[in-house]
Amino acid sequence: MISLENDLLLRALLREPTPRTPVWIMRQAGRYLPEYKKTREKAGSFLNLAKNPDLATEVSLQPLERFNLDAAIVFSDILTIPDAMGLGLHFVEGEGPCFERPLRDEKSIYGLAPPDPSKELRYVIDTIRQLRKALKNRLPLIGFSGSPFTLACYQIEGRGGSDFQLVKKMLYERPKLLDVLLEVNTKSVIDYLNAQIMAGADAVMIFDTWGGILSQECYIKFSLKYIERILGGLIPSLDGRKVPKTVFSKGGAVWLDLLSKSGADAIGIDWQLDIGLARKVVNERVALQGNLDPSVLFGSPELVKSEVGKVLESYGNGSGHVFNLGHGVSQHTPPENVEILVEAVRDKSPSFH
Amino acid sequence: MISLENDLLLRALLREPTPRTPVWIMRQAGRYLPEYKKTREKAGSFLNLAKNPDLATEVSLQPLERFNLDAAIVFSDILTIPDAMGLGLHFVEGEGPCFERPLRDEKSIYGLAPPDPSKELRYVIDTIRQLRKALKNRLPLIGFSGSPFTLACYQIEGRGGSDFQLVKKMLYERPKLLDVLLEVNTKSVIDYLNAQIMAGADAVMIFDTWGGILSQECYIKFSLKYIERILGGLIPSLDGRKVPKTVFSKGGAVWLDLLSKSGADAIGIDWQLDIGLARKVVNERVALQGNLDPSVLFGSPELVKSEVGKVLESYGNGSGHVFNLGHGVSQHTPPENVEILVEAVRDKSPSFH
Repeated sequence: MISLENDLLLRALLREPTPRTPVWIMRQAGRYLPEYKKTREKAGSFLNLAKNPDLATEVSLQPLERFNLDAAIVFSDILTIPDAMGLGLHFVEGEGPCFERPLRDEKSIYGLAPPDPSKELRYVIDTIRQLRKALKNRLPLIGFSGSPFTLACYQIEGRGGSDFQLVKKMLYERPKLLDVLLEVNTKSVIDYLNAQIMAGADAVMIFDTWGGILSQECYIKFSLKYIERILGGLIPSLDGRKVPKTVFSKGGAVWLDLLSKSGADAIGIDWQLDIGLARKVVNERVALQGNLDPSVLFGSPELVKSEVGKVLESYGNGSGHVFNLGHGVSQHTPPENVEILVEAVRDKSPSFH
Repeated sequence: MISLENDLLLRALLREPTPRTPVWIMRQAGRYLPEYKKTREKAGSFLNLAKNPDLATEVSLQPLERFNLDAAIVFSDILTIPDAMGLGLHFVEGEGPCFERPLRDEKSIYGLAPPDPSKELRYVIDTIRQLRKALKNRLPLIGFSGSPFTLACYQIEGRGGSDFQLVKKMLYERPKLLDVLLEVNTKSVIDYLNAQIMAGADAVMIFDTWGGILSQECYIKFSLKYIERILGGLIPSLDGRKVPKTVFSKGGAVWLDLLSKSGADAIGIDWQLDIGLARKVVNERVALQGNLDPSVLFGSPELVKSEVGKVLESYGNGSGHVFNLGHGVSQHTPPENVEILVEAVRDKSPSFH
């Protein structure tokens, strides 16, 4: 690993001192940018874009051209693993990701094997290599995957959703069968994230988008347990530099204490919990990433600035904060407001360090 | 008010001692019951059914014929108020409630007035009167409404949903205009619930279905504040009997401490938080209602029994618990499992009292 010109993100994720709060934006390479839309049009579809390393590299770099961001994130999807397992990922307009061949019986679950990152997921690894080259030593690069339970939700239901009746039914009726699936997913995520690290990802992130639909007991058994296993299986450091691990938990604010003891270096939180309270809960065990409500970006520049100030102030003095939204940036966001956000973090945060 | 043969619900909501834990089920009168489907077919639509006091009384009573429930709840909808304001409630298959004329400009918001419960909402009041008569002094009857913020979500968006961009935009950009709407809703809910109490509701419930989409600061300002105002404006007791007030908060487990200080007698919680932990948080300030994951009802009778046992055990010894699901019962639930749930609560709960 080369040493980076701007390593604020990595230091903040490890709660080391920084002169200001680093900032990046979930889905920073995405549909709110006209240049992204152009590239996507060229690619024909989201998946063609994600699976073409040249184009995926191009869109990953686009937000860095526009904004003073402190990290790049590989353009990809949280569902690449089930797609690589042969479930047939596709995107339905207005519905989000769907699988053509969801897992509905025992046989299809027992038949699953972890994909080989150097084969079925090679396009992601190649994109990371290209991105690493293109970025030179400017900025850290983030790799990511969905959590085993979140992958299972899509694998079983065939889509994201509302009540997740099929997943819940399996969880309550056939918990051991669900465990079989979660084991395969866990092994897959470990292999996949380690391959991303080896290819040039300086930090990795696990997105637990759907853990929040569970009761606490089920969350511990079916989501947190496997996340912890992944965290224990990832490359701790490379070439003498630690590789920070972040877990993003949507709707899991009530379990923040548990998450802070999971072995993650940082927890990404949504906007529900005040980040100052969250900091008290995690009690210096982990860094926090977040947590501005993405809807603030539909407001005026003054609103964006003042709400950025509130998040910084609530977190308070000292290290261990990576500024981000509490969820991905909406496709309808005016890009100018993202610039205002980024500059506001740069302007206002030094006084907290 | 007459004195009731079975007043377990009222006593548990007020944290008075009871010989066992009372139980009722959110949406207990609903589509999972074949007899409900028949009546609904007769009515032609959900709204025809809800607006016909004879039929609404009939379906409210149906679950009481089948199950040993400890309360009746008036068959109605959380959105009757905006419908009575003239916004045109209707139901789209697979999409839930929609409004034909959502509030999209200043003029339409300033033009709103609280509906007169004895006129535009008379069908609900009449249903409660009829139900009260039909129930005689057997069981307590619950009345309800949506919370001001939850009503505003539907009033502004025109439907329930996912990202609530229009509501959020108004909240961040025009908070005072949103306050105007919330004031009208608050006044409406107070009038409406007081009329329900006068007509025979022994307890009332405020459903805050969408408060959980807010950040903590916004939740306090735009949802909790108005709920507190309602709680302060409701008839405290009638004919010498207290009228317990319950606030159901979906996705608001992180704010349980705040909710327990709102002036409510009881807080209804979803299934995310372990009810034993929730009990510690509310620290004897309020009773708790909940919180079995409705998906458990898709499992085997053994599963239902054991999961009921877990909730009872987690709450522990003593009063102040009303058993319920953490959300409305799903339309695909086998009615036999509801019976098993109800009987399991009756069987297992006495040892905790």
